[in-house]
Amino acid sequence: MITPRTLKGFRDFLPELMLPREQLIETATAVYRSYGFCPIDTPALEYLEILQGKGSDETDKQLYQFTDHGGRQVGLRFDLTVPLARYTAQHYADLTFPFKRYHFGKVWRGENTQAGRYREFMQCDFDTIGTKSLAADIETALVINDLLEHIDLKTKQTFTGFRIRVNNRKVLSGLLDKHGIAGKSVPILRTLDKISKIGKEAVLREMTESADITVHQAEAVLQLIDINNTDGTDSVIFSLQKLLSGNPLGEEGVGELADLIRCVHAAGVPADRIVIDASIARGLDYYTGTIYETFLDEMPQIGSVCSGGRYDNLAGVYTKQELPGVGASLGLDRLISAMEELDMLEKKSTPVHVFLPFFAADRLTDYLKLAANLRSAGIGTEFYPEARKLGQQLKYADKRGFRFAVIVGEDEFAKGVCQIKDLKSGTSTECPIGELFQADSAARFAVSSSLLPLS
Amino acid sequence: MITPRTLKGFRDFLPELMLPREQLIETATAVYRSYGFCPIDTPALEYLEILQGKGSDETDKQLYQFTDHGGRQVGLRFDLTVPLARYTAQHYADLTFPFKRYHFGKVWRGENTQAGRYREFMQCDFDTIGTKSLAADIETALVINDLLEHIDLKTKQTFTGFRIRVNNRKVLSGLLDKHGIAGKSVPILRTLDKISKIGKEAVLREMTESADITVHQAEAVLQLIDINNTDGTDSVIFSLQKLLSGNPLGEEGVGELADLIRCVHAAGVPADRIVIDASIARGLDYYTGTIYETFLDEMPQIGSVCSGGRYDNLAGVYTKQELPGVGASLGLDRLISAMEELDMLEKKSTPVHVFLPFFAADRLTDYLKLAANLRSAGIGTEFYPEARKLGQQLKYADKRGFRFAVIVGEDEFAKGVCQIKDLKSGTSTECPIGELFQADSAARFAVSSSLLPLS
Repeated sequence: MITPRTLKGFRDFLPELMLPREQLIETATAVYRSYGFCPIDTPALEYLEILQGKGSDETDKQLYQFTDHGGRQVGLRFDLTVPLARYTAQHYADLTFPFKRYHFGKVWRGENTQAGRYREFMQCDFDTIGTKSLAADIETALVINDLLEHIDLKTKQTFTGFRIRVNNRKVLSGLLDKHGIAGKSVPILRTLDKISKIGKEAVLREMTESADITVHQAEAVLQLIDINNTDGTDSVIFSLQKLLSGNPLGEEGVGELADLIRCVHAAGVPADRIVIDASIARGLDYYTGTIYETFLDEMPQIGSVCSGGRYDNLAGVYTKQELPGVGASLGLDRLISAMEELDMLEKKSTPVHVFLPFFAADRLTDYLKLAANLRSAGIGTEFYPEARKLGQQLKYADKRGFRFAVIVGEDEFAKGVCQIKDLKSGTSTECPIGELFQADSAARFAVSSSLLPLS
Repeated sequence: MITPRTLKGFRDFLPELMLPREQLIETATAVYRSYGFCPIDTPALEYLEILQGKGSDETDKQLYQFTDHGGRQVGLRFDLTVPLARYTAQHYADLTFPFKRYHFGKVWRGENTQAGRYREFMQCDFDTIGTKSLAADIETALVINDLLEHIDLKTKQTFTGFRIRVNNRKVLSGLLDKHGIAGKSVPILRTLDKISKIGKEAVLREMTESADITVHQAEAVLQLIDINNTDGTDSVIFSLQKLLSGNPLGEEGVGELADLIRCVHAAGVPADRIVIDASIARGLDYYTGTIYETFLDEMPQIGSVCSGGRYDNLAGVYTKQELPGVGASLGLDRLISAMEELDMLEKKSTPVHVFLPFFAADRLTDYLKLAANLRSAGIGTEFYPEARKLGQQLKYADKRGFRFAVIVGEDEFAKGVCQIKDLKSGTSTECPIGELFQADSAARFAVSSSLLPLS
């Protein structure tokens, strides 16, 4: 006998968690598509040389790599961006640009599992490649807003709110440039990123040490934090303009931020939904323009649930074609964790609302017909496969989280009626069987249904 | 510079193929859910001991296996059935039975790629575990029927038809038993499975050799083929009854087949859609009861597109709990190939119908508002991110396969109207912008939309 178990850092999804996970993916899919983003897929395994040296030292170390049957050095992808770069370079001639794609896929990292991190997780990326236009940056913010808004709508409770924080790498680079410390941007931005965790004093100390800059220079960088405390977007823009005045790159960045915010508002996003956070740096990434982070009002501590930014060139190691782009990634697993913690998830393990017990043993074909008719009317229905005591079956239905039981015994079949039992309230109503399949009947059972329409 | 390439036997999906693939998965998801099947997920990587020796010698040889960072022997799953067995045993206490699950997931096999086979492919399984009731076998056939029917509806052309072929392992076992060759069922059934490929004479010869049985015994087995040529289901049942008469197991199998066909018809499946094929054996599998195969009328040569069967015990190596079940698997990649070959797929790389060109350069926020309003009205809309010549943008729209362009220039904005250009016919109609967002407006653009509804 072999002990059934999963590898450390890997996990199974039980139906009660997989249902909301699928629902989130469906919502994100619908939002991405509504903007014209197309799905793509790439293999889980890639040539090792495609993956190695493309992330950080850490991702290299965490790579799942081995030699395959044909003696090839291969690895499991650790993100969806490196495969996208490879894909775009490889299929350049077959793609149309601007190329807008979304990609849901698992990635693997042999990470330390102590911090509740998983070694296999899902990424949900969307990117617009092949344009430098700020319109694509604006659209990226709109997509993020739609994602969080629509995820809200699908859950039993809504998030009280969320906020998209944006910044622009040009502002950061301009500021460092202005103070003669542009060459030290990597350690400076890495330290700046810790501001919300360790506070201003500690950042100041660490910055002077790790980047070898003066306290005066570090203080110049930290002005960004004070700017965040000024009143409203106009005021932040004004302060940034003053701060970056005379530095062309920095001024360009401030102008882009101002345009971005103005257009996102004009497109209908509430004013407090998107704010400038001049201290966001997004660490060591390859971003060169707008950067995005998204926080839930109720759970800022879980970090950003949707992040991304603009980059100058996606696939420089694979092609001479310059491929600028902008995109972001939805943190599916973080969102699910947040929703679990906020008790937003329904505790049920059924995708449909209607349960049909089987207890008149000689009526199998009648039950099958009834269930088929319900499904044809758009009412998903689970039929219990064994003729058992009604109480036993209703207990099963309750455990699974069905909302209604359509009860039909020998007597009901003879009379052509059924009992619709509301499993939450316990009340029953009688209904002619024929009425179950009428055009408006689905509404009777549709309790925030997550069912895809059939056809 | 690194050459961008994929591993042999692996492939990327471009949008034009990924869109119908996602559509197929959505359709299958909706069908599975409508019967109460729940989604689950399991890791791509498993302990090697979980996977090894669970399929055939071939799957063992084809296993992608290696040692991970922690020195564990691990492997990539080669199907979804072994992980399901492990999962069901591991989470037995947390599941409710009958446990009905579906699972879409990639699997990996280091196969010979000559025959157009891939080393990474998607499986789409559904199973009902924990019941021996024939009602679950019947429902499995109904699900297969719904799958193929609804896939039909979603494509621009429909399959002219499909047929579900069923058999019962008890009939086969009973027949072998009756002729004293039950102990040789493995080589006999393996050879019988080749009947459609190599014909009766060759099967007869090979069967006597590989199973070491007499010509007389082989001929007794091959009576099953002649039975298929009799007229209609009733006649096949009658012939099988005669053939198995006196053998309890065989008679039970014939009875199950008769009940299955009767109930599937009663539930509304057309009579010629499901037929008994007494020569189906499904090779070396672990099936013990009903078995299913599904063939497209137009392309029988691609083989079964949905196959499965009933098994006595799913997870015997992992748990003492006896877990009987029945299920099947949709051949997603085969179906896509068939649809490609039958020219059923639309050649487009956009999930939405409406394209909004950007050519009045000063009207960015007006365009953004317009696009946002269209999306709110349920009309997915792609907005071009750069202000360019209209002709250039329409060429792009045409290449992507958009159906409509909503054209608004400076003049139109001033007048509050737009031109709706049908990109197929080339005709344009003028329309007040406000009318685009009315309740019935989505219908104007909904050309067999594949869009999920938002909210």
